[in-house]
Amino acid sequence: MLPETVNPPFRRIQVDDTGRLTHFLTIEGLGREQLIGILDAAKKFVPSPGDSLNKSSALLAGHTVVNLFFEDSTRTRTTFEIAGKRLGAEVISLNTARLSTRKGESVLDTVRTLEAMDTDIFVVRDGASGTAHLIAKHVPADVHIINAGDGRHAHPTQAMLDMFTIREHKGDISKLRFAIVGDILHSRVARSQIHALNTLGAKEVRVIAPATLLPTEIESLGVSALTDLDAGLENIDVVMMLRLQLERMEGQLIPSTQEYFRCYGMTMERLNRAAPEAVVMHPGPMNRGLEIASNVADSERSLILSQVTNGIAVRMAIMAQLVQGGPKGGRQ
Amino acid sequence: MLPETVNPPFRRIQVDDTGRLTHFLTIEGLGREQLIGILDAAKKFVPSPGDSLNKSSALLAGHTVVNLFFEDSTRTRTTFEIAGKRLGAEVISLNTARLSTRKGESVLDTVRTLEAMDTDIFVVRDGASGTAHLIAKHVPADVHIINAGDGRHAHPTQAMLDMFTIREHKGDISKLRFAIVGDILHSRVARSQIHALNTLGAKEVRVIAPATLLPTEIESLGVSALTDLDAGLENIDVVMMLRLQLERMEGQLIPSTQEYFRCYGMTMERLNRAAPEAVVMHPGPMNRGLEIASNVADSERSLILSQVTNGIAVRMAIMAQLVQGGPKGGRQ
Amino acid sequence: MLPETVNPPFRRIQVDDTGRLTHFLTIEGLGREQLIGILDAAKKFVPSPGDSLNKSSALLAGHTVVNLFFEDSTRTRTTFEIAGKRLGAEVISLNTARLSTRKGESVLDTVRTLEAMDTDIFVVRDGASGTAHLIAKHVPADVHIINAGDGRHAHPTQAMLDMFTIREHKGDISKLRFAIVGDILHSRVARSQIHALNTLGAKEVRVIAPATLLPTEIESLGVSALTDLDAGLENIDVVMMLRLQLERMEGQLIPSTQEYFRCYGMTMERLNRAAPEAVVMHPGPMNRGLEIASNVADSERSLILSQVTNGIAVRMAIMAQLVQGGPKGGRQ
Repeated sequence: MLPETVNPPFRRIQVDDTGRLTHFLTIEGLGREQLIGILDAAKKFVPSPGDSLNKSSALLAGHTVVNLFFEDSTRTRTTFEIAGKRLGAEVISLNTARLSTRKGESVLDTVRTLEAMDTDIFVVRDGASGTAHLIAKHVPADVHIINAGDGRHAHPTQAMLDMFTIREHKGDISKLRFAIVGDILHSRVARSQIHALNTLGAKEVRVIAPATLLPTEIESLGVSALTDLDAGLENIDVVMMLRLQLERMEGQLIPSTQEYFRCYGMTMERLNRAAPEAVVMHPGPMNRGLEIASNVADSERSLILSQVTNGIAVRMAIMAQLVQGGPKGGRQ
Repeated sequence: MLPETVNPPFRRIQVDDTGRLTHFLTIEGLGREQLIGILDAAKKFVPSPGDSLNKSSALLAGHTVVNLFFEDSTRTRTTFEIAGKRLGAEVISLNTARLSTRKGESVLDTVRTLEAMDTDIFVVRDGASGTAHLIAKHVPADVHIINAGDGRHAHPTQAMLDMFTIREHKGDISKLRFAIVGDILHSRVARSQIHALNTLGAKEVRVIAPATLLPTEIESLGVSALTDLDAGLENIDVVMMLRLQLERMEGQLIPSTQEYFRCYGMTMERLNRAAPEAVVMHPGPMNRGLEIASNVADSERSLILSQVTNGIAVRMAIMAQLVQGGPKGGRQ
Repeated sequence: MLPETVNPPFRRIQVDDTGRLTHFLTIEGLGREQLIGILDAAKKFVPSPGDSLNKSSALLAGHTVVNLFFEDSTRTRTTFEIAGKRLGAEVISLNTARLSTRKGESVLDTVRTLEAMDTDIFVVRDGASGTAHLIAKHVPADVHIINAGDGRHAHPTQAMLDMFTIREHKGDISKLRFAIVGDILHSRVARSQIHALNTLGAKEVRVIAPATLLPTEIESLGVSALTDLDAGLENIDVVMMLRLQLERMEGQLIPSTQEYFRCYGMTMERLNRAAPEAVVMHPGPMNRGLEIASNVADSERSLILSQVTNGIAVRMAIMAQLVQGGPKGGRQ
């Protein structure tokens, strides 16, 4: 199975003719300058310790952000809500799965209705691939869509906050080797991470998983695929763990959770096989003792809580850029 | 079955001795000047295109608005939430059906409790007729109740946003003929529209529905009742479609949804039987292909999205008037 | 069964070495000066009638408050939400029972994640005793935990708003006699009230309940336990009713609700057995006709709605003190 793609290409939809970002749907098709522009802009939204008054800005004052979550998520929804509020926007969070959809209203009617309430940004999350993309095709030019996760397809703001966190802790991405470990098959995070790492020129990207959780043509994305974690960690600077999505697994993709942890769980012993000072990341929520040992998650080598903190700053930067127009760019 | 009414008459409850509006429970009993006053006041709350900073005001700064929805609704709750926030109020949205009511607390205890938190406006929606009215009878003079829909009885802010939208697109209501089409029997929207159109002096109001969905004494409200949609549309300037409330239908009120669409669905061909430049409205959420064809809903003759946009401005005007005291008036 | 206690003692956790309050988990172990400090500070947060603009302050501007309710509650959650907003904080309300916990994320991972979003105060409510305490042990020094009710253990902000209301209506607590009536066994409110009344030097505290609802060693807390309500009310100045927690009762703890009301329901006749001008309180939501007669609840002797109003002011005072550092004190 190939990683899912959506037609027509996002490139034409999320970047306008002058090269400005109008939506943020996928990393695919964005240029290095565009990604770097967002990462650099996010720096000014990271609060200094203790500097609580400087957490907020008024860049989006008078603007309305609607969190449209057809699939719920504490972490992602809350960080987008905080990010919008810290930019001075009105933020409305809707879980429309429970509301109009029950009455048979289509997704597009829901969006058009909310759009008619003068919404400037929709943050869209859905269990189906392509929902944010579908919506982006149907909104007027001054309405901006951010993909907060669509099916197995993409989770681009997660990948951006990962890139931000890596640069902050490990420096230049082009000098680092990466391993993405775990349930690649079901992971929209992995797909977005691979595109971001490739665009930012990572030295090497390996994906490591049991064969049942490795999409068959994953190497066409420019990564190497391995099934042996111990061997695969050699020389790796950044280990990006994935959540084992037990709730999405149909059939018997792993023999048992114990067996999974034995072969693919990140332990301190395993982490020591990677490069000296290698770090571990995880998009959360973690299954402790399943894909990651507790002492690894809580160790000084773990960047997991930094990822959360940076998620707010990176999402603020993306929202601000969509509304204000960021630097032009894109893959030429 | 007569359209439901509630005793004692709302007139005595929603307008004080000096003629000021204290609650907004029903259109019934309000005077032309009062309705026009609200419609005129709403104009200044419609944002100019692109003028995002001027969407908000501070008229309700320091005030608290509680959305008390015993029956949920994305559209109505969200527009009230946005309206309150754009006026500078603190807005608390509660779905108490899931909360205290479970513990056996009565509606009035819930209201008294929230009132003790210094609430200025309650926006109340309930599946039972008369809930907003019941609450209005029990709050002190400085607390204001807005009916956001009660059972089959009334949905007065919906009717007001419809009137606003009609005036904006078609001008003086007294020069226009109206058809309200569909599930009149279950519709609180229809009842409020009829009262508003009569009060504003509409030239003619027809209600059109299959006999099973026509309340038997509806003509006592000063409208003509018809069962033939094709004939009934003649000379009509504004077609106000209703949502077929399948979820409220007990028993077999329509033969089948296909048959319903064939006889009562609004198609472009049918719309062409109405007056030239006739427009179509719908309170949403629509059942596309059931009461309205998709190409009609999305055509230039459709005012459906304007209704949503205007809903915020009209609700802002009503909230502001309740708190600040609007022009005196009422039916003399 | 002894009232539940939690180890290690809260004293070491909620007050720092200099005697400042860092968390607000239980009344136990706090000194008279600390309680009086909060009660005095709360006075300035009670709005003057009609003074809607002075309801808010900016003491917590730039701060983030997360309402983390694993067990829902309209009243408590809403007052904390309003309290936080009136102090100028960003308030995020989460019912994580429905969210990440479903994915197997532990309470502490949820808290760490939210903490990484720069949360300053967590307001925690849970059906299990000790949850707020567990969280307090694991957060850094600049994060503050408020216990909004944990199992049968404590509900300290409720006790503080009760103390505030008593002082406002009846004056000095050391001159008054108290009866706490009803379901003592299941009540975290009663436990916190007993500690507060003792610390503030109440003249006498009686707990009155059927034997099945009286914890066996309750008198070790310094109260007298009675089963006869009529006799027990003699000379009482303040009657503090408890909610009969039918939803928590396993087995047959009361013979029938009618029988319960006959023996333990607060009627006007019974209230007249207490001291002249005795007042009645109830934490809500009430079971009218079960533990309290409607005419008592709605009488001039009832302080029930004052309790709600004061709940906002008292919670504002506690939040402000945690963030800004209140007066030093504690039981020496």
